[in-house]
Amino acid sequence: MKSAEELAEHFKKFPGVGPRQAKRFVYHLLTVARGNAARIADLISALPGETAVCPECKRFFAKDKNNLCPICRDPRRERNTLAIVCRDVDIEAIEKSGSFRGRYFVLGGTIPILDNAPERHVRLKELILMVSKAASSPDNALAEIILATNASPEGDHTADIIKASLAPIAAKSKFRISTLGRGLSTGTELEYADSDTIGNALRNRKDNSR
Amino acid sequence: MKSAEELAEHFKKFPGVGPRQAKRFVYHLLTVARGNAARIADLISALPGETAVCPECKRFFAKDKNNLCPICRDPRRERNTLAIVCRDVDIEAIEKSGSFRGRYFVLGGTIPILDNAPERHVRLKELILMVSKAASSPDNALAEIILATNASPEGDHTADIIKASLAPIAAKSKFRISTLGRGLSTGTELEYADSDTIGNALRNRKDNSR
Amino acid sequence: MKSAEELAEHFKKFPGVGPRQAKRFVYHLLTVARGNAARIADLISALPGETAVCPECKRFFAKDKNNLCPICRDPRRERNTLAIVCRDVDIEAIEKSGSFRGRYFVLGGTIPILDNAPERHVRLKELILMVSKAASSPDNALAEIILATNASPEGDHTADIIKASLAPIAAKSKFRISTLGRGLSTGTELEYADSDTIGNALRNRKDNSR
Amino acid sequence: MKSAEELAEHFKKFPGVGPRQAKRFVYHLLTVARGNAARIADLISALPGETAVCPECKRFFAKDKNNLCPICRDPRRERNTLAIVCRDVDIEAIEKSGSFRGRYFVLGGTIPILDNAPERHVRLKELILMVSKAASSPDNALAEIILATNASPEGDHTADIIKASLAPIAAKSKFRISTLGRGLSTGTELEYADSDTIGNALRNRKDNSR
Repeated sequence: MKSAEELAEHFKKFPGVGPRQAKRFVYHLLTVARGNAARIADLISALPGETAVCPECKRFFAKDKNNLCPICRDPRRERNTLAIVCRDVDIEAIEKSGSFRGRYFVLGGTIPILDNAPERHVRLKELILMVSKAASSPDNALAEIILATNASPEGDHTADIIKASLAPIAAKSKFRISTLGRGLSTGTELEYADSDTIGNALRNRKDNSR
Repeated sequence: MKSAEELAEHFKKFPGVGPRQAKRFVYHLLTVARGNAARIADLISALPGETAVCPECKRFFAKDKNNLCPICRDPRRERNTLAIVCRDVDIEAIEKSGSFRGRYFVLGGTIPILDNAPERHVRLKELILMVSKAASSPDNALAEIILATNASPEGDHTADIIKASLAPIAAKSKFRISTLGRGLSTGTELEYADSDTIGNALRNRKDNSR
Repeated sequence: MKSAEELAEHFKKFPGVGPRQAKRFVYHLLTVARGNAARIADLISALPGETAVCPECKRFFAKDKNNLCPICRDPRRERNTLAIVCRDVDIEAIEKSGSFRGRYFVLGGTIPILDNAPERHVRLKELILMVSKAASSPDNALAEIILATNASPEGDHTADIIKASLAPIAAKSKFRISTLGRGLSTGTELEYADSDTIGNALRNRKDNSR
Repeated sequence: MKSAEELAEHFKKFPGVGPRQAKRFVYHLLTVARGNAARIADLISALPGETAVCPECKRFFAKDKNNLCPICRDPRRERNTLAIVCRDVDIEAIEKSGSFRGRYFVLGGTIPILDNAPERHVRLKELILMVSKAASSPDNALAEIILATNASPEGDHTADIIKASLAPIAAKSKFRISTLGRGLSTGTELEYADSDTIGNALRNRKDNSR
């Protein structure tokens, strides 16, 4: 069953899919979803053509008559704040929180800790270009860049490299570079929290007197 | 992103896939697997045409110049023993054990416990036809049918219904109907075993004296 | 907090208890259960004196005016069948199944696979003594010994060593030695079962024709 | 086996222990730990007498010739900062982080959300007394109280009630009341974070420019 096996090999590379589940996907397409196989194939082959990368923020969006993605072309989004994220899914999570009114830039990945060529993993050149342009915009110039990376060693490392790369422009154009606040996340119990989290929660404590 | 959403809806129906993972599959096709999307689509659309249902055992196999699947056309397989399984994957598991030399029949599903129309869930008519033919074969007639179902309430129920349906032919043609042995499976500890399993292990105990 | 720490060290050796939980036990005794601490201490110190090892089957039971445990002194238990188990909890599991009417012998442990001195792990001498006596009993002599060990490599190994040790008496006194039946345990699905279990389930299949 | 059963009932109330594990504890004391049972009983019965509640912070400590616990009598601890925690284990976690140099007060519990009598769950009266005394201390008066509760609904509720109870003294004595910082805890990935956590991480973001 050669092409079934080749297909299972592709499914095995899907995120979170093991060899057994990959085979079950093929079997699912042969049986339950047999009638939908042609439609699924059409959707997959059409996918690259129907989506575009936004030339500003680099996220994927459903191609339409517009050049920019819905966020980048929304006049109500603040143009002086930029959140730099690693992946498209991070934008989804931040948008769902309803706590951010600025714009985004998608790096397209994270920078592994022992890697000397960050530009192989993230869109560094495009970022510098975009930030330079935004910083020198005559009206509504960039005031703050938020490095919205995960609270993991790789996320921290990525934020460090990006900060170093943007430092010269930030110095010249006088915008802030910030990172996401650290402390207790929802559900954290002190008893099970690591010392870094407790230390951050104490350092970043909030005056509740008023 | 309409077609991406439709595709995610299809992925959500894949076995063991939740809504978040379905979205990640679409994103995976847009990014990491972008270059393979066309190939994956081709494989999926070709799948139904490149596979056939074996007219004897009803399992799927890679279509070739032969009419029957590799097991059904293998002259070394015993023709007097038939294992009835619910799904193709059960054949794979049994073949891997290397403990069965007979042939198979795939029911295509299980029979829900409170269902009065078993023929809507399994290939009952085709089974009776196939068994009748095998039982009346002049040479090498059917000697035993093994109901190889899961040790679950639904598996037991399916075996019961199939047994009842085959009983008249079995009586006439004098073949045995057996079910898989029950007892301790590899790794079972008495302390955590249910009473049914312990009861079966005691009833089906094996004389090791000789 | 020296004695609290010593107590936590003891709790850490309790089955399934980690260092953090051991500390919480101490804290629980200091707070919530403070009023019960004296009673718990009394119960623990009384425990060895209030329980006895049955001189026949070697299991623990609440000491009373009787010498033998409730099972060994029950005249309704069959005296010709003996189940050999590794631990007291195995008796509980088998009794709960209601499928055994004979008597027991508790080995007190399992024999590690690469160990050459089985008598350091199980009551081998006591077993041979007990079996010799039972085998030569004038009335109702031993007809069968069931080696009721777990379906694990160590359980199998223990059964093998015990069988070899009892083989001479069995040959002379003509009782059977059996092991628990292997096959599908409750809930086993063929798709996820290992090849040994499937092989056993096929070999030990049950004729359901009648 | 009556006293064994009574003991198992006590073990069942130990934190994180189920009925089966409770029985195994008794069996462990009867077998493996039989030789230590007397010592364990001694330690448990001595426990209440060998520990004392610190009259200042209310935590348990190993009774010695001192009246106060090691933290409360340590002259190097800052006397102007007080962390209010729910349980002794929270002090352990904070001390391990090495990020706090002040003193503690143990409430002894949390206040359930729909409860109108907080004093039944926490040491409210003792807290108010202790804070009043600390606030009016002539030298080194209280400057800040940190409500170090878990990031859970019950932890938040407890912090709210405590804050309201202390507000009058705080207003008069001019000390701050703060809560632990919220944001990403170690290991948090944006993709899986809840909207509250992301919102807090954005609001509490940190200027990294300098």
